[in-house]
Amino acid sequence: MADRDDIDALIALMARLPGLGPRSARRAVLHLVRRRGSLLTPLAELMATVADSARECLTCGNVDTAEICGICRDPKRSSSLLCVVEDVADLWAMERSGQFRGRYHVLGGTLSALDSVGPDELRIPKLVDRVSSEGVEEVILALNATIDGQTTAHYIADQLEGRVPISSLAQGVPIGGELDYLDDGTITAALNARRRV
Amino acid sequence: MADRDDIDALIALMARLPGLGPRSARRAVLHLVRRRGSLLTPLAELMATVADSARECLTCGNVDTAEICGICRDPKRSSSLLCVVEDVADLWAMERSGQFRGRYHVLGGTLSALDSVGPDELRIPKLVDRVSSEGVEEVILALNATIDGQTTAHYIADQLEGRVPISSLAQGVPIGGELDYLDDGTITAALNARRRV
Ligand SMILES: [Zn+2]
Ligand SMILES: [Zn+2]
Repeated sequence: MADRDDIDALIALMARLPGLGPRSARRAVLHLVRRRGSLLTPLAELMATVADSARECLTCGNVDTAEICGICRDPKRSSSLLCVVEDVADLWAMERSGQFRGRYHVLGGTLSALDSVGPDELRIPKLVDRVSSEGVEEVILALNATIDGQTTAHYIADQLEGRVPISSLAQGVPIGGELDYLDDGTITAALNARRRV
Repeated sequence: MADRDDIDALIALMARLPGLGPRSARRAVLHLVRRRGSLLTPLAELMATVADSARECLTCGNVDTAEICGICRDPKRSSSLLCVVEDVADLWAMERSGQFRGRYHVLGGTLSALDSVGPDELRIPKLVDRVSSEGVEEVILALNATIDGQTTAHYIADQLEGRVPISSLAQGVPIGGELDYLDDGTITAALNARRRV
């Protein structure tokens, strides 16, 4: 049995989602309450299922429901091409373009002196391991065209220099642009025109 | 056991919330997956609880967890003052102001010829009943200052004419409002309703 406090608590939790503030959280909760059968109950069940099973892939950092994600397990995907992204959202954006048939490595952020994020806070040591152990023949740096993204790309290029050819997404990614905001065609063009660094 | 499809299904459901599109739904789901213990699991549980228990108050239309809502049950609130609002969100907004100590009547929308919404689609017959049966001494029309809101207010005023005094919220410049940011209609209304100081 719930009481009115549960509705308020639900609004407060919803307001913690990115993109929702208190007002839009209230709207969302009213919307959900009016669609109990078609939306609120399925959402509650799916959230419980995902909470039980979603995890970060031990190899690449993608979010999936297995210890090793579907992309890393897929034998049709080339293990010789490794695409490095900052964030899982960027990996998903690359996948939506449907052009890349290699594997990924999710850093989990960018180097940032300001926020004290060093290489060990990211998955850079693991990246260096993978390049050695998985027979990677090309590393594609698909980092955001921001200062921190490019600083991180340079650092990784230094770490991997002499071990493997490295390329980066072509111009086409606008200055200051974040992958997750780009349309699929832009990502495809940038991928096809990737350059050695 | 979930699979990757559950994550996609969760994104699709989240994208049906007002204020979230596909991109912000993906961001929200990644945010939730990274905060499984602190956010995703509590949210799933609270949604399930609210789905079981939230309902519209049989008297006023407020969303609550009892058949008759807390406001309608509160003996300290005057039953002689009845505030008519379009939507539960408007009722909640009035409550946040903390000024009104009467009861509410939620219409559930506005009259709209375009969308074929007539008086029986709203809770107008129920409003007329309540005015007769609950000893209401004043009806306050707190409808939005839109064309449909004002059309609905005029219709209700006609229905209740001679039965009960009717008032409406004053129109004017909001507290902290800058004239330069207000639309002409608001300025006109504020000018017409000017008061001696
Ligand atoms: Zn993986
Ligand atoms: Zn009520």
